Amino acid sequence: MARAHNFNAGPAGLPLPALERAQRELLDFEGTGMSIIEHSHRGKAYEAVHNEAIALVRELLSVPESYHVLFLQGGASQQFAMLPMNLLPAGKSADYILTGGWSEKAYEEAGRVGTVRVAATTAVDKRYTRIPRQDELTLDPAAAYVHMTSNNTLFGTQWHWLPDVGSAPLIADMSSDFMWRRFDVSKFALVYAGAQKNIGPSGVVVVLAKKELIDGARKDIPTIFRYATHAANNSLYNTAPTFSIYLIRNVLSYTKEIGGLDEIERQNRKKGELLYAAIDQNPDFFRAPVERESRSFMNVVFRLPSEELEKRFVAEAAKERMVGLAGHRSTGGIRASLYNAVPFSSVKRLVDFMKDFAKRA
Amino acid sequence: MARAHNFNAGPAGLPLPALERAQRELLDFEGTGMSIIEHSHRGKAYEAVHNEAIALVRELLSVPESYHVLFLQGGASQQFAMLPMNLLPAGKSADYILTGGWSEKAYEEAGRVGTVRVAATTAVDKRYTRIPRQDELTLDPAAAYVHMTSNNTLFGTQWHWLPDVGSAPLIADMSSDFMWRRFDVSKFALVYAGAQKNIGPSGVVVVLAKKELIDGARKDIPTIFRYATHAANNSLYNTAPTFSIYLIRNVLSYTKEIGGLDEIERQNRKKGELLYAAIDQNPDFFRAPVERESRSFMNVVFRLPSEELEKRFVAEAAKERMVGLAGHRSTGGIRASLYNAVPFSSVKRLVDFMKDFAKRA
Repeated sequence: MARAHNFNAGPAGLPLPALERAQRELLDFEGTGMSIIEHSHRGKAYEAVHNEAIALVRELLSVPESYHVLFLQGGASQQFAMLPMNLLPAGKSADYILTGGWSEKAYEEAGRVGTVRVAATTAVDKRYTRIPRQDELTLDPAAAYVHMTSNNTLFGTQWHWLPDVGSAPLIADMSSDFMWRRFDVSKFALVYAGAQKNIGPSGVVVVLAKKELIDGARKDIPTIFRYATHAANNSLYNTAPTFSIYLIRNVLSYTKEIGGLDEIERQNRKKGELLYAAIDQNPDFFRAPVERESRSFMNVVFRLPSEELEKRFVAEAAKERMVGLAGHRSTGGIRASLYNAVPFSSVKRLVDFMKDFAKRA
Repeated sequence: MARAHNFNAGPAGLPLPALERAQRELLDFEGTGMSIIEHSHRGKAYEAVHNEAIALVRELLSVPESYHVLFLQGGASQQFAMLPMNLLPAGKSADYILTGGWSEKAYEEAGRVGTVRVAATTAVDKRYTRIPRQDELTLDPAAAYVHMTSNNTLFGTQWHWLPDVGSAPLIADMSSDFMWRRFDVSKFALVYAGAQKNIGPSGVVVVLAKKELIDGARKDIPTIFRYATHAANNSLYNTAPTFSIYLIRNVLSYTKEIGGLDEIERQNRKKGELLYAAIDQNPDFFRAPVERESRSFMNVVFRLPSEELEKRFVAEAAKERMVGLAGHRSTGGIRASLYNAVPFSSVKRLVDFMKDFAKRA
């Protein structure tokens, strides 16, 4: 089987050894005569996997003891609603920093639940090409929280510094760059991230939440939507998406084996630098719309001289098994997502193809 | 590999051919060089799987065109909240028929969202041993809807007839007996069911919803919680739990192959009859607490003369690879779940073991 070069924006590629392990174990998990899918979420076999996945998140990110690690359902889109339902009481307002389509959605959904403010936006003609500067933030000192989106899949921007938000809790949607490297969890009150980019399949969202924040959250909402419910039940309040969490376990266990997030970051930087260099070396043909300081290491977006050429580029690349290169339908252009599981060799292959394509075009 | 005899209450066993297909395809889905897990939820490969899964639900149950078939996240527990958020406006009340722990939960959660009434309960000392009779229902003619739980995993009861609720929309939680046989979808306004009993892994809940009901639902709730959102987007509003839906496709495609739900029902009745006969034939040793007319074909509960014996029964059965036989922690006793994928041979094995155990005890 020839592996495709998978540049999908998510769900994305997973490390082959993690998938091979899943394949080996699929019909008979650890000699139990059952698939892990067929095990009870309250049985010992699954419980061990569940707790190992949580422990691996804790270990790889050095998550402080004062934080819960939760596995929930509904993706980041559901967090857009759950977050203000829990943490935005009547009479308070929350600040949102807009840096792309996903932060816009988070802001809009929070607005259906409570009062929200835009603390900054870098949109020009509905396009975002950069992360704001600290002096562009107009923060409400009394904000219930400040929300940011750490990486923007659509526009290919990424925060490379953390905003100073004073004493307000800082909350981040890290769906598209969670665990692309280590980060200081204690700088955030809450972090959420759909698993399907860097750490697993779709169907699970990871939440890291400061315990004291959750303790003080609203209690007048349905039980299933309270972070406190899931925290009190070790993410087993209701039937967990067991196979998805099992696969996260496989991915993180492999990640640890190869050297943890320091090694992952080294690989990710090397991949990103190679691709951005190829773009920058031929500015007459490739154009990177994103400001240099805001460039994402996860989603590299660039344009070709014409939409016609972009279409040809995507089609010819697909023939050589490089998939997922078309930009988001709302932005157009080319987008190569370089998540953790994308091997350096795939990026090398893409860069060679780019050089050849530019010559021929 | 010796397959275990899996009597889990859910997540439950899946048909071996459906799992074998998943194993075969896990690293390379249809020659794409990628796992189905690694495909974009907006790509052609996954889209075909997604639509096939929906089409199979439609076909196997003859779902009328006037109904949506949705795949959502959060399980039945999330439906407990989503249902009243969508369909219980201020000034209206909803009727709940209580027949077990899960209908109690559905009722309690709806009560956090709006006004609810108990239309009937068969609880005696917090235990439910039967389904109510029609003349025991005290229905509110103006109810926004009437909610029932078609099968009760904890207490082992099941509705074998449908209540007459007049013109009120009838809504059923079918999590634990969905697709155990064909049923007339048009009798219900909405049906929801966690996949992890009869049709797939955990992490997906299937919703069948009358289109006109959804069109008239509340719009003042977060976008992600509106049935209309998911209906308008073919359950692809946000990233779907792709692998779970893929596995549902495998299970239902196999179900169709072996003769559809008529064959499944035939098998399920045969399994249930065998097990209940074994219980009834030895009333001095085995006691079925459930009223005969309310017995479930999905979850067969019974007691032994003492809790001591029950413990020994579960432990000895486990040694012979019969797993999942302990009753729910809240009820005790023995529970054998006979979902669609449990083979007749496993029930036969259990019945032989029961006879032998009774003799020896």
